[in-house]
Amino acid sequence: METLHITNTLNRKKEKFEPLVEGHVGLYVCGPTVYSTAHLGNVRTFLSFDIVYRYLKHLGYKVRYVRNITDVGHITNSAGDDVDSIGNQAKLENLEPMEIVQKYTISFHDTMKIFNLEAPSIEPTATGHIVEQIEMVQRIIDNGYAYEKNGSVYFDVPKFAKEHSYGKLSGRNIDEQQDGYRELDAQDEKNDPRDFAIWKGVDETFPMRWNSPWGEGVPGWHLECSVMSTKYLGQKFDIHGGGMDLKFPHHDCEIAQSIGADGTEPVRYWMHTNMLTMNGQKMSKSLGNSVLPLELISGNHELLEQGYSPMTIRFFMLQSHYASQLDLSNDALQAAEKGYKRLANAFDLLDKVEHNGKENISDEEEKAVLKLIQDCSVYMNDDFNTAQTLAVLFEMSNKINAIYNKQFDISLLSKATFDKMKATFAAFFTNVLGLKSEKSEGSNGVTDGLMDLILEIRKSARENKDWTISDKIRDELKALNIVVKDEKDGGTTWTVG
Amino acid sequence: METLHITNTLNRKKEKFEPLVEGHVGLYVCGPTVYSTAHLGNVRTFLSFDIVYRYLKHLGYKVRYVRNITDVGHITNSAGDDVDSIGNQAKLENLEPMEIVQKYTISFHDTMKIFNLEAPSIEPTATGHIVEQIEMVQRIIDNGYAYEKNGSVYFDVPKFAKEHSYGKLSGRNIDEQQDGYRELDAQDEKNDPRDFAIWKGVDETFPMRWNSPWGEGVPGWHLECSVMSTKYLGQKFDIHGGGMDLKFPHHDCEIAQSIGADGTEPVRYWMHTNMLTMNGQKMSKSLGNSVLPLELISGNHELLEQGYSPMTIRFFMLQSHYASQLDLSNDALQAAEKGYKRLANAFDLLDKVEHNGKENISDEEEKAVLKLIQDCSVYMNDDFNTAQTLAVLFEMSNKINAIYNKQFDISLLSKATFDKMKATFAAFFTNVLGLKSEKSEGSNGVTDGLMDLILEIRKSARENKDWTISDKIRDELKALNIVVKDEKDGGTTWTVG
Repeated sequence: METLHITNTLNRKKEKFEPLVEGHVGLYVCGPTVYSTAHLGNVRTFLSFDIVYRYLKHLGYKVRYVRNITDVGHITNSAGDDVDSIGNQAKLENLEPMEIVQKYTISFHDTMKIFNLEAPSIEPTATGHIVEQIEMVQRIIDNGYAYEKNGSVYFDVPKFAKEHSYGKLSGRNIDEQQDGYRELDAQDEKNDPRDFAIWKGVDETFPMRWNSPWGEGVPGWHLECSVMSTKYLGQKFDIHGGGMDLKFPHHDCEIAQSIGADGTEPVRYWMHTNMLTMNGQKMSKSLGNSVLPLELISGNHELLEQGYSPMTIRFFMLQSHYASQLDLSNDALQAAEKGYKRLANAFDLLDKVEHNGKENISDEEEKAVLKLIQDCSVYMNDDFNTAQTLAVLFEMSNKINAIYNKQFDISLLSKATFDKMKATFAAFFTNVLGLKSEKSEGSNGVTDGLMDLILEIRKSARENKDWTISDKIRDELKALNIVVKDEKDGGTTWTVG
Repeated sequence: METLHITNTLNRKKEKFEPLVEGHVGLYVCGPTVYSTAHLGNVRTFLSFDIVYRYLKHLGYKVRYVRNITDVGHITNSAGDDVDSIGNQAKLENLEPMEIVQKYTISFHDTMKIFNLEAPSIEPTATGHIVEQIEMVQRIIDNGYAYEKNGSVYFDVPKFAKEHSYGKLSGRNIDEQQDGYRELDAQDEKNDPRDFAIWKGVDETFPMRWNSPWGEGVPGWHLECSVMSTKYLGQKFDIHGGGMDLKFPHHDCEIAQSIGADGTEPVRYWMHTNMLTMNGQKMSKSLGNSVLPLELISGNHELLEQGYSPMTIRFFMLQSHYASQLDLSNDALQAAEKGYKRLANAFDLLDKVEHNGKENISDEEEKAVLKLIQDCSVYMNDDFNTAQTLAVLFEMSNKINAIYNKQFDISLLSKATFDKMKATFAAFFTNVLGLKSEKSEGSNGVTDGLMDLILEIRKSARENKDWTISDKIRDELKALNIVVKDEKDGGTTWTVG
């Protein structure tokens, strides 16, 4: 596609993307609740929006990317029940809730960094917006869409649904929703089981609580995103994303709250990422098939045959479209490892291949390469199709390898086209897809330098038939998990792991 | 000293440290205002309290360490004027204030990590505690120590000073303070120039502002620390620290606010760190002698002859007492580099020296080593005297080197004492002083492994008089900035840089 198109959950259609303000994009993504280490599913979701963020910037937009931290723990589950995740974890670890928040916020940031995700422009916290949340609750009450009961405030779903569409993201019919809920019991103070808390009164046994016009309490979970997205992006903004499990109730409630408070539907393009499964099954603690990011890297899990590097995992996730289910398995990861290494090798070769200045241009070759260059954008424009974009980069890497190995005559391409291909490959590999070479990771070039020295010694030892040294080098490199490969052109490449 | 003593700014005396609750310590340190990259002076301050945090934990205390992030920018300077640092920077960079906050919070965290500072237990933000700050302002008004004027609320210093001591940390006499302030001009709404804002009314030209009982505004700068320290550590807590420039007005105002709101003096031990100078002068942008942390590491500054590694800089700062002025110069840093490397080498040798099990104990030697072991704690107990503690570690490192080089007969020491010395050296080097070996930094052992291989090849090449290979190795390692040193005992050590 020539311009960016996005599948909008609002209507399930692939729509041309047109930002509200030319040249600018406001992007909001629901961030983590910081009471445990991030799951691989979280990594996939945030990685998907990292691609959205990176590609929008690549297109020249000035992007304000807001991703929140949920640091107050009352999460409403799909049955309408309240779970105080952070408070519960604080009791378990015998810490103050804000110590739990700090511990798992740091852990989350570390995980995002490992997989080379860029930090958002603003990372607001729920506890940092209590004033604004109280004000939004008040506006919803004032507009007649919420009522107070015993210190809590509930959103009046049936009343709202009479006047507005409710549940349009999830596609749930308001009447069907009744089924998803338990019956109201005698203690339940809600008028209708579908109503949800936008302010929850709590007593002094909860360490996290704030004064409000309705007594001490905490904001409802859905409310924070409504407040923080519109505070930093405006009452109407471009893109809102999250995992598909958030469509209902979280995102449908966000829409209701914004309309209830300010009469405006807030989001123009809703985007939802699909699930990550393990060997075909949903990951869950009870099935024992839930693998954590660091376990996947170390290989320290009974379902894993080996560890996989962060860039292998990133590559693996980019091999499927964000809106498709993605299945984790040893086979798929091992294939991804090979694929990533092929691309990374081509990336490392980029500064070793230069056009020789002689042009004996073949129209066919020239056209083919120009098409590859264009295709990177064509596929990314097609709802961020990273899988197809990777396929194009593979074709480019074949070309780069062939040129490096002198199997392809570089003079068949114009210097301009060849240089453009190199620049495009580098830009999509690093800036857009966020991949990087892991070869000399963290070694500041020292490892590369030492390896160059060792390979030279190996070469001269072989030439001198000094098998003692060449065998020693072979054994020691093997012990260090370094794989050396002699290429057809007489050169030598190596990789760790 | 046998138990920890701390110089308390409240009375300028070295006092025995006794926590409020046995086994627990509450520690609050004023954190950065996140509108620019951290200065080296900031690094020194936070490093000093990193030592306090680490040593308290080493002593077995359960420490709750709170260090705030000032993310709303109205800082009152010593003339009583208001400077909106974050708002001003946002205009300069054409960003939303919270984008500035995010950018410089990440930069701050990165800097702290480079110098191996541990993260605090809680890192609360000023914007995350607006509700609590408004409540504290109200309590101060209710108690008669503050008044509202045109939407701002001021602390009534003369009234407070009549009933309580004001300025006890800075030692300023309330009457002398008058001199430090400009005359009240006609527009000034304060009753007295010494009064300070605890809530500052702002108009809609300020993007950061909140509703309050006094209209839209922002909390006064001093207020946030009063609120966040007592929220997480209690109305009375153990230790409050910061740079000495914060004594007045910031910390003296904190004391006044707590007494004004809750009738309690909040802090039992106040600690203040001293300044960092450059070649004997205060660092300042106008003098051109202000060196940033990354410049000091890269050496990319006209006043620097070379770059210095993060651990060299950390070591350098630990060589003086936190309460003494510390002067940065090339000579001092180069000396620190040598000193750090000596200690780090001894640390790397720890797993290469073992007691042989034969004991032919010399009472004198045994006693000398036991004294070294004890002295580490004795000096740290003496108001965190890291300089003296480093001196003891040097004596230990001499012993470790002599044992490794077989110049000292290990059987003169009992195995128990020798093992205790090793454990003490390791614990103080890493856990207490927060130093680490930079040798294989980031290389995951690959660099170490490759170097072992190269040094073996070098050894056998020399034995075989193969000068081609040994010269090649010498030249290439030199190019990689790797220094190889042949030890007297026939062993070989190497360092990068």
